[in-house]
Amino acid sequence: MDLPRADPSSPDLAAVVDLLGVLAYGELTAFDRLALDARMAPTLAGRAALADMAAAELGHFRRLAGRLIDLGVDPDEAMRPFIAPLDAFHDSTRPSDWLEGLVKAYVGDGIAADFYREISGALDEATRGLVLDVLSDTGHAEFVVHQVRSAITADPSVAGRLALWARRLMGEAISQAQRVAADRDALIILLVQGSGDLSGIGALIKRLTAAHADRLSALGLSA
Amino acid sequence: MDLPRADPSSPDLAAVVDLLGVLAYGELTAFDRLALDARMAPTLAGRAALADMAAAELGHFRRLAGRLIDLGVDPDEAMRPFIAPLDAFHDSTRPSDWLEGLVKAYVGDGIAADFYREISGALDEATRGLVLDVLSDTGHAEFVVHQVRSAITADPSVAGRLALWARRLMGEAISQAQRVAADRDALIILLVQGSGDLSGIGALIKRLTAAHADRLSALGLSA
Repeated sequence: MDLPRADPSSPDLAAVVDLLGVLAYGELTAFDRLALDARMAPTLAGRAALADMAAAELGHFRRLAGRLIDLGVDPDEAMRPFIAPLDAFHDSTRPSDWLEGLVKAYVGDGIAADFYREISGALDEATRGLVLDVLSDTGHAEFVVHQVRSAITADPSVAGRLALWARRLMGEAISQAQRVAADRDALIILLVQGSGDLSGIGALIKRLTAAHADRLSALGLSA
Repeated sequence: MDLPRADPSSPDLAAVVDLLGVLAYGELTAFDRLALDARMAPTLAGRAALADMAAAELGHFRRLAGRLIDLGVDPDEAMRPFIAPLDAFHDSTRPSDWLEGLVKAYVGDGIAADFYREISGALDEATRGLVLDVLSDTGHAEFVVHQVRSAITADPSVAGRLALWARRLMGEAISQAQRVAADRDALIILLVQGSGDLSGIGALIKRLTAAHADRLSALGLSA
């Protein structure tokens, strides 16, 4: 890695480390989740597609961990505060079938991407470039949208169940995010600065919720 | 992919398709197994290392599936005959802890690599290049050897249990291989031709068993 080192005297370094830590552990758990959910695929091609998404998340993890190492921080230490809330999120949202797994992959990645974009304005240039790069769509969203829309066309009753599932995912994500926010002040300040919207967290949650509704529409689900 | 097409009139094409099919499904299940076993890691660094091994196997899977597509064969069709025996192998050898998972990853990859090398002599050039490339050590073996040897140093009683486990892995692998061999004549002929040893399967199993014993020594286990 040839990224420049952040200024260690910057008051934001702790917040940046927190951000990289939560992103890194998020990617590592996303790898686990997708690899596991791939087993529910009805075809080997679908299984391989979800496994590819898993491998892409692991690549992101490696880059985020590499940036932490460049900053002189042990990635394990940076991730530690976020293990409990992220594991709790996944434990409380285990997909019961292939379609629920796909919706979770799509919705979860979408929420994460929105969140990262909100925060990127407050980052040093090297970290911002990395975060935006990690966010770039790996082309898998199209696969998920196609699969879910086809399933709804084949059996319209599926839509209600999946819409309910997507609402639950968003509810659990917000609930765990509040848990993280409660004791990570620096991260919250970074987030509010990054979004450039001083009306703060309330407005942010509103924007994230609106983007979530747009994604549900793309899947053919009502919010 | 710019690999040349195999001659479809070649009598060996069915055998090559079988070989690519069993390798491809083997890599896909290896991805699953490693991704799942990664969760048992005692540290996040260990978890990430096993996840990396999983991602490497998936990359191999993609290349093997690509070669099948080049040959005009649907990878799903080519893999289908091997789903039951490979799933049975994994179901009967679920690691109960992190060290058993590491030993399985190391021993399983080793047996697979030996097998591929035996068969490579009978392959057309493009397929042989791909198979040997897929086999090349991804540098993860060293990680496993170090972890297992350290665990044995810390607690020598671990060695007996892991040696027993490694014997069971080899036994189950041979038993499933026999099941595959029973109805894949072309594959067996390819294998005997490839090894260049006309004394056949008996001698082959002897060589594989000797190589297995060498790997156990490397891990600090008795065969």
